[in-house]
Amino acid sequence: MISAQGYAAHDPHSPLVPFAFERREPGPHDVRIDILHCGICHSDLHQARNDWRNALYPMVPGHEIVGRVAAVGEQVNKFKVGDLAGVGCMVDSCRTCSSCREGLEQYCENGVTFTYNARLRGSDALAFGGYSDVIVVDENFVVKISPKLDLKAVAPLLCAGITTWSPLRHWAVGVGHKVGVIGLGGLGHMGVKFAHALGAQVVMLTTSPEKAIDAVRLGADEVVLSTDRAQMKRHARSFDFLLDTIPNGHDLNPYTALLKRDATLVLVGALTELTPPLSGGSLIGGRKRIAGSAIGGIAETQEMLDFCAEHGIVSDVESIAIQSVNAAYERLLKNDVKYRFVIDMATLKTAP
Amino acid sequence: MISAQGYAAHDPHSPLVPFAFERREPGPHDVRIDILHCGICHSDLHQARNDWRNALYPMVPGHEIVGRVAAVGEQVNKFKVGDLAGVGCMVDSCRTCSSCREGLEQYCENGVTFTYNARLRGSDALAFGGYSDVIVVDENFVVKISPKLDLKAVAPLLCAGITTWSPLRHWAVGVGHKVGVIGLGGLGHMGVKFAHALGAQVVMLTTSPEKAIDAVRLGADEVVLSTDRAQMKRHARSFDFLLDTIPNGHDLNPYTALLKRDATLVLVGALTELTPPLSGGSLIGGRKRIAGSAIGGIAETQEMLDFCAEHGIVSDVESIAIQSVNAAYERLLKNDVKYRFVIDMATLKTAP
Repeated sequence: MISAQGYAAHDPHSPLVPFAFERREPGPHDVRIDILHCGICHSDLHQARNDWRNALYPMVPGHEIVGRVAAVGEQVNKFKVGDLAGVGCMVDSCRTCSSCREGLEQYCENGVTFTYNARLRGSDALAFGGYSDVIVVDENFVVKISPKLDLKAVAPLLCAGITTWSPLRHWAVGVGHKVGVIGLGGLGHMGVKFAHALGAQVVMLTTSPEKAIDAVRLGADEVVLSTDRAQMKRHARSFDFLLDTIPNGHDLNPYTALLKRDATLVLVGALTELTPPLSGGSLIGGRKRIAGSAIGGIAETQEMLDFCAEHGIVSDVESIAIQSVNAAYERLLKNDVKYRFVIDMATLKTAP
Repeated sequence: MISAQGYAAHDPHSPLVPFAFERREPGPHDVRIDILHCGICHSDLHQARNDWRNALYPMVPGHEIVGRVAAVGEQVNKFKVGDLAGVGCMVDSCRTCSSCREGLEQYCENGVTFTYNARLRGSDALAFGGYSDVIVVDENFVVKISPKLDLKAVAPLLCAGITTWSPLRHWAVGVGHKVGVIGLGGLGHMGVKFAHALGAQVVMLTTSPEKAIDAVRLGADEVVLSTDRAQMKRHARSFDFLLDTIPNGHDLNPYTALLKRDATLVLVGALTELTPPLSGGSLIGGRKRIAGSAIGGIAETQEMLDFCAEHGIVSDVESIAIQSVNAAYERLLKNDVKYRFVIDMATLKTAP
C-alpha cells in the first residue's frame, strides 16, 4: 500500500525495510487507529523531497493524524475501541530524562522518536506516518479528541495547533497582554485563534495587505503591515509577546523593536539562518529576549485539544483526496492554502 | 580644566556650551563628590573617538566614578560630607515610567540621562563624566561605598560590575547552576568573580589559552577553549546560563549549542550585528533563549556594592595617571589590561 503511492519521494537504492511495524498487532500498551484524516505540514514536503538531507526512504509522511480507535492492547486504559484519537509529531521518547519526566517529550534528551522519517526506538524499522489507513502507537503518545469538533479540522491541531499553543501557554499569554502574531499561514492562523481565545489583544503582523480581512475574521484586533515603517514605528516597544511563525530565515530586527522591556519573541517556524544578522543592541536596550519553541508535549497537546473542544476552535482547512497530494505540495509552495490541507483518508481506498 | 586636557577628542566646530553644570552648587537633592578614581570603560574610547557617530563635544568621559562627598543639598539624607560615594553610567531618568518605578532606570522609557556624552534633563547643558575632579549628582543616582574595599578597585564595579551582576541576579544564578562566562576582559573577569561568589559552578569560555590560569585564579572551576570543537562538544547542552561579554559581533551558534533546555544566553557587550547569523533551529530545539541586558538599576547597583563589601570583591585594576589616558586607550584596543584601567584623579592636579 505504501510503495504504490505516488505522493512520497522514493529512493530506489535504499534497502528494503520492514513495513510491518506500523501495522503490528497492538502490544499491551498500544492503540491501533484507523486514520480518517491527516493534515499536510510544510515539513512533510521538505522531508518527502529530502530538502533537509535526512530522508529515510521509503517514507510515509504525515504527523497531523486523527482517526478512530480500532483495537487496544490489554493494558490500555486511556482508550477503548470506537474512541476518536489523534497522533502528532511524536510516537515515542526515552521517558526517563528530565524533559520526558516533565511532560516535554519533544525535548527528550535522548532524542524523541518522530512519527515518520525516523527509526522506531530500539529497532531498525522505519516509522511511517499518517498518509495511510492505519497507525499503531503507544497510548502515551495518543491524545483524545472530542466528538464535538469537526474531525478533519482537528487534524492540524496536532502540529500547527500545538506548535503555537505551547509557547503561548509557556509564556503565560492572556488577558491584558498585547500579542503579535508574525506571519499568517498554517501556524499563524492558529496563533491568532489561540491568542484571541486566551484573552489577549492580538495584532497580526503580515507582509500581505490582502490578508487583513481574514486576520480579523480569525480573531486579530488589528493588522499591521510589517513592511510599512510608519505603522511599525507606531507599535514600537508596545508588545508583551511576539509569536514568529515565519517558516524561513528573516530579519528579526524590525520585530525586536516592537518588544517592550523584558518581552520575548518566540520563533516556531524558522529553523534556518536568520538574515540579515540580529543586532545585539536591539536586545540589550530593553532586556529583550528571543527564544525558540518546538511543537509541545503530550500533556499540553491534550490540554490544547480540551481547550479547543470547550471553545469550539479548529483549523481552517481544505480537504483533499490523497491523489492530490503532489498538487497540494505545489500549492503549498505558493502559500496557496487557507490555511491547511487535510487529506481525507477515505480516498485512499479509491487509489489506483 | 576640561578643554585643557588632551585625553578627549574635541570638535572645534561645536558651539561653546556651559561647563558649569557639573560643578554647580548642590541643589536640595544633590551630592557633590570629589572624584578620587575613575575607571576606563571601552565605551569611553568609542565615544571620545566618535566611533558611534553620536559624540557631543566637548566631552569628559568616565562613568566608573568613586570619590568622597564634599557637599550635600539641604534635603539630602542618604549622604553626609566625608562619605565614600560612587556614580555609574546614569545621572538622571524620568522617574515616572514603569521601568523607573521598578528601579530599572537604565531602561527608562523616556530615555535615561547618561553620565556623559548626553544633555542634562530639561537643559541644553552637556553632562560631563568622571575624568575630572568633581561631579554633582542627584542623590538618587549616587551609591554608597564601603570603606572596607580598595577604593580604586571599586570604580569599575559601577559599570563592568553592575553590567555582569544585573543579569546574574535577574536570571537568579546561584548554587547548583553551571554558568559559562564568555570572554575574559573587563566585564568577563567580574562575571567570573560574581558567578563564583553566588555559588555557581563557573566555566570560563575563552579563545585565549593563556588566560586559563588567570580565569581559575578569578574563580572559574574550569576553562574551555571555545575554538576547540571537541572541548565545546563535551559541554553541549550542559549550561544553565551563559553570560556573553564579547564586546563586538560574533557567532552565537557555538554557544547556543551549550545551553540546556530553557536556558538563556545573555549578551551584555555586543551592541553590533551578530555574524555569522544565528540559526533559528539552534533555539527551537530546546526552547533556548537569547537575551540582552544593559548595566543595572540604582538599587541593584547598591545591592552589588553591599555584596562586594561583604564578600571582599573588587575589580582587578591597573591604576594610571590622567596623563596616560591616550596610551591606555591604545593598550585597551589590544586587550592589554588586566582587567581595567583606573585613573588616579590625584594626578589631575599635576596636569600641565
